[in-house]
Amino acid sequence: MMDYPLLLKTILYRAVTVFPDQEIVSRDFSGMHRYTYRDLDERVRRLANALASLGVAPGERVASFAWNNHRHLELYFAVPCSQRVLHTVNIRLFREQIVYTVNHAEDKVMFVDEDLVPLIASLAPELKTVRQYVIMTDKRELPDVPLPGAILYEDLLSQHSPDYEFPEFDERSPAVMAYTSATTGDPKGVVYSHRGLFLHCLTCLTGELGVDDDDVTMPIVPMFHVNAWGRPYTDTWAGCKQVYPGARPTPEVLCDLIQEEKVTFSAGVPTIWMGVLQHVLANPGKYDFSHVRYFMSGGAAMPAALTQQFQEKLGVRLLQGYGQTETTPVTFINSLKAKHRRLTGPELYRLRTKTGLLLPGLEMRVVDAEGREVPHDGKSMGELLLRGPWVIDAYYKLPEKSEEAFVDGWFRTGDVVTVDEDGYLQVVDRTKDLIKSGGEWISSVDLENAIMAHPDVAEAAVIGIASEKWQERPLACVVLKPSARGKVTKEDLRRFLEDKVAKWWIPDDFVFIDEIPKTSVGKFYKRALRTQYEQGRLTS
Amino acid sequence: MMDYPLLLKTILYRAVTVFPDQEIVSRDFSGMHRYTYRDLDERVRRLANALASLGVAPGERVASFAWNNHRHLELYFAVPCSQRVLHTVNIRLFREQIVYTVNHAEDKVMFVDEDLVPLIASLAPELKTVRQYVIMTDKRELPDVPLPGAILYEDLLSQHSPDYEFPEFDERSPAVMAYTSATTGDPKGVVYSHRGLFLHCLTCLTGELGVDDDDVTMPIVPMFHVNAWGRPYTDTWAGCKQVYPGARPTPEVLCDLIQEEKVTFSAGVPTIWMGVLQHVLANPGKYDFSHVRYFMSGGAAMPAALTQQFQEKLGVRLLQGYGQTETTPVTFINSLKAKHRRLTGPELYRLRTKTGLLLPGLEMRVVDAEGREVPHDGKSMGELLLRGPWVIDAYYKLPEKSEEAFVDGWFRTGDVVTVDEDGYLQVVDRTKDLIKSGGEWISSVDLENAIMAHPDVAEAAVIGIASEKWQERPLACVVLKPSARGKVTKEDLRRFLEDKVAKWWIPDDFVFIDEIPKTSVGKFYKRALRTQYEQGRLTS
Repeated sequence: MMDYPLLLKTILYRAVTVFPDQEIVSRDFSGMHRYTYRDLDERVRRLANALASLGVAPGERVASFAWNNHRHLELYFAVPCSQRVLHTVNIRLFREQIVYTVNHAEDKVMFVDEDLVPLIASLAPELKTVRQYVIMTDKRELPDVPLPGAILYEDLLSQHSPDYEFPEFDERSPAVMAYTSATTGDPKGVVYSHRGLFLHCLTCLTGELGVDDDDVTMPIVPMFHVNAWGRPYTDTWAGCKQVYPGARPTPEVLCDLIQEEKVTFSAGVPTIWMGVLQHVLANPGKYDFSHVRYFMSGGAAMPAALTQQFQEKLGVRLLQGYGQTETTPVTFINSLKAKHRRLTGPELYRLRTKTGLLLPGLEMRVVDAEGREVPHDGKSMGELLLRGPWVIDAYYKLPEKSEEAFVDGWFRTGDVVTVDEDGYLQVVDRTKDLIKSGGEWISSVDLENAIMAHPDVAEAAVIGIASEKWQERPLACVVLKPSARGKVTKEDLRRFLEDKVAKWWIPDDFVFIDEIPKTSVGKFYKRALRTQYEQGRLTS
Repeated sequence: MMDYPLLLKTILYRAVTVFPDQEIVSRDFSGMHRYTYRDLDERVRRLANALASLGVAPGERVASFAWNNHRHLELYFAVPCSQRVLHTVNIRLFREQIVYTVNHAEDKVMFVDEDLVPLIASLAPELKTVRQYVIMTDKRELPDVPLPGAILYEDLLSQHSPDYEFPEFDERSPAVMAYTSATTGDPKGVVYSHRGLFLHCLTCLTGELGVDDDDVTMPIVPMFHVNAWGRPYTDTWAGCKQVYPGARPTPEVLCDLIQEEKVTFSAGVPTIWMGVLQHVLANPGKYDFSHVRYFMSGGAAMPAALTQQFQEKLGVRLLQGYGQTETTPVTFINSLKAKHRRLTGPELYRLRTKTGLLLPGLEMRVVDAEGREVPHDGKSMGELLLRGPWVIDAYYKLPEKSEEAFVDGWFRTGDVVTVDEDGYLQVVDRTKDLIKSGGEWISSVDLENAIMAHPDVAEAAVIGIASEKWQERPLACVVLKPSARGKVTKEDLRRFLEDKVAKWWIPDDFVFIDEIPKTSVGKFYKRALRTQYEQGRLTS
């Protein structure tokens, strides 16, 4: 066989060869921007020449600090296809984390969206390796913010020729890097190779995930977060019409784009879908989503009520996906098996909240505390381990963290799961959030869901508290809806749970708090709760 | 990223993990055989242990001489997954070619289907490297044919444990090999690596080619010919119900299986589909193919009339694919673009006879005699060159032939093609069959199609004859339908062509013959015609 490397340039090559006139729509700062794959290809080549002129050597890092738009898409191709590495800086990290990741990655040039310039300008003195800032905007002028030596992206492109041939090199070369949204310690760097992204995105074209040039796709999941789940590459490969929703898209912006651009496929976290649902319901008669094939939901467990409401009120299927920053990210998809295709109502929604089936090309193991594989019976819990060509084997320049997470060639996901007889994975909890009570395991997630089913509860987080007798016991931290505050008691909640969970699962104590602390990506930040408890600040 | 090799074992792993109870149906010698992926996996492991007991070392070749059935499928996995190489011997080659390929590949063990034992027994004295014959049958007794030391496949499997762990090794290791059905000289060996097959078959799960566990797939294209277009691996990966039609399947057998097993997807050459069509039309009311999604047609150009009749009389879409033994084989597929989805009638059928769009992961060039790329205008002709991870870069132990076919990292397909503005490839001719007349090219294939449109013509082949003035001029070799013999004249054909092709395309001469010589796979064997002409045996 030819020694033909699996490089990202192959994706762009096919798109422009087979679908040159397909459209890419981008919500730019002053209005909608439209062009074709042919235009994308030309601008990517200009940008590759520009990167050389900025003195970025092969293998060096180029940072993006940007929303989902066409310029970010150009960076997605130009940087790795010219053998440089794109560091998609997470704009939602805390300030000190942004500084840490840029310095840790040693980014040489940074491309910044117009509206994010003030934030970067305030951090610039601490970004030690960045030699050049490039401002991405559709305006002709630099924003009125002091960022020394900054230049305009459009000026840069116009100064360079589209005459550029992508080099060929080892497929294991780094292409993109990102940092985990750490809840403990500094964010950890993850490097994606051309080979890994190629195989991940090719696999994302198979089965129920598959899209084609009849699809209009809109990634809502940010391009600064785990490759926007690979959509920019996957959708380009398939020749889809692509829609990029731009800066700070509100539910209204998203709903309008879905309707006006006839979006058939989109991808985002459950919080986004919650917002979309509420906006549609608040504007009866305004939206018709009958052209939508499905929306993918990932990044957090999808509540059964959400998939049900999407189906029944909007006529849209929510398809659950699963993965981690360490896995490029997609590894499981909630495809329906042939025998499930005729399910309806509660049975269907229950199945759709399962995490999903393993994608082609990967291997999984589910092991108990002793490292033994647990049976696929839908009940036995164990930690999910993964192997595959788009799973990383170490964190970037972080050997000690890598030793914990990567063991004997497997990635320890830290997720406690079950697998049923049909092969459906169900994430039960994080290993570190699981409560070990008297030799048995209590799922904090299941318990939280049971509590949140109470009509007066807005949110609930359950943590394990040290117990001499039982090792650990659950403590429930509950946010009541404003109307119920001071009225609903611990005893009410205890009684409510009695016929819903095993008796020994019922928390020993409930504390009422105003808000659950959350991470930069909106997940419960349980470590903060544990610290508050240890410091005596969390009391009932 | 993990250094996770792309091996065929990954395909079987997913199938048995996610779809253990899915069914595989095989038309065995004494009746239908049914089992599950779980059973397949167990027997593959037994077979891997058996191969070790037969003394086949890693990298050594194991020959199969068999039809499409479940034992052949077991060989497809057990041989390569245990790091040996499966040589799928083409049972339709001439006797001396079979001997040549087995000796050239140095096959150590040969697995032979029951009904093919007499043929192999007659060749056995010449097969110098084969140490052991294994007979594949559902009967308990060896066939009554002398094949020294032969043993029964089922006995062999029962003697070995299913306890076997597939080894891990370099993904570039050879997995399967095959020989081209050469029209000139000896067949040429082609070696497929694990990596090449993995990437080819993963890509065959994307776009319109994609199948899933709701599909019932039946490969009719032989497993002894270019990996049955990858279907055994592709369909296993997707967890399809698979149907194997067994030995010498007639159109009746195929039609019955399609109907009884509810086949939704199948793959075969146009001749097969012609037979299926005729059988259905000859048995009105017997067959209902409404459950079929589509049938794939490849290996030869698909006549427009065939796709039209399938659509209008059977309600089934024929999807054209394209490839070569050297390309694993699939490289182009006649997917409809979004804008074509509403086409009907002649416009649709004309589009469906185009060769197709390039699959993801590949690169193409279409070059004129000077090596310059020709425009994508649907008119400019050039030779198709291909690159990609499932394209070979040399023939097995045949350096001089490799130099001609593989130039500067590209495979020269030998096919003359056009590419239109939408990226659709159209094969016009073989480079060696193209007629170079007065500095212009005449497509022998187009000319043949024009002649075969005459109602009294059964078949026609056009060859180039040396001309002092024009370099070459076309000669048409025509087979008239029996009823027209002695009645239709050269002048009739000449007049018939006048308003159908350019005047200078009209053949200088027509000869009437009884039959067009064909290769082992049913293609026109024009070299034989040229030899006959040179020897003066082809005269009008």
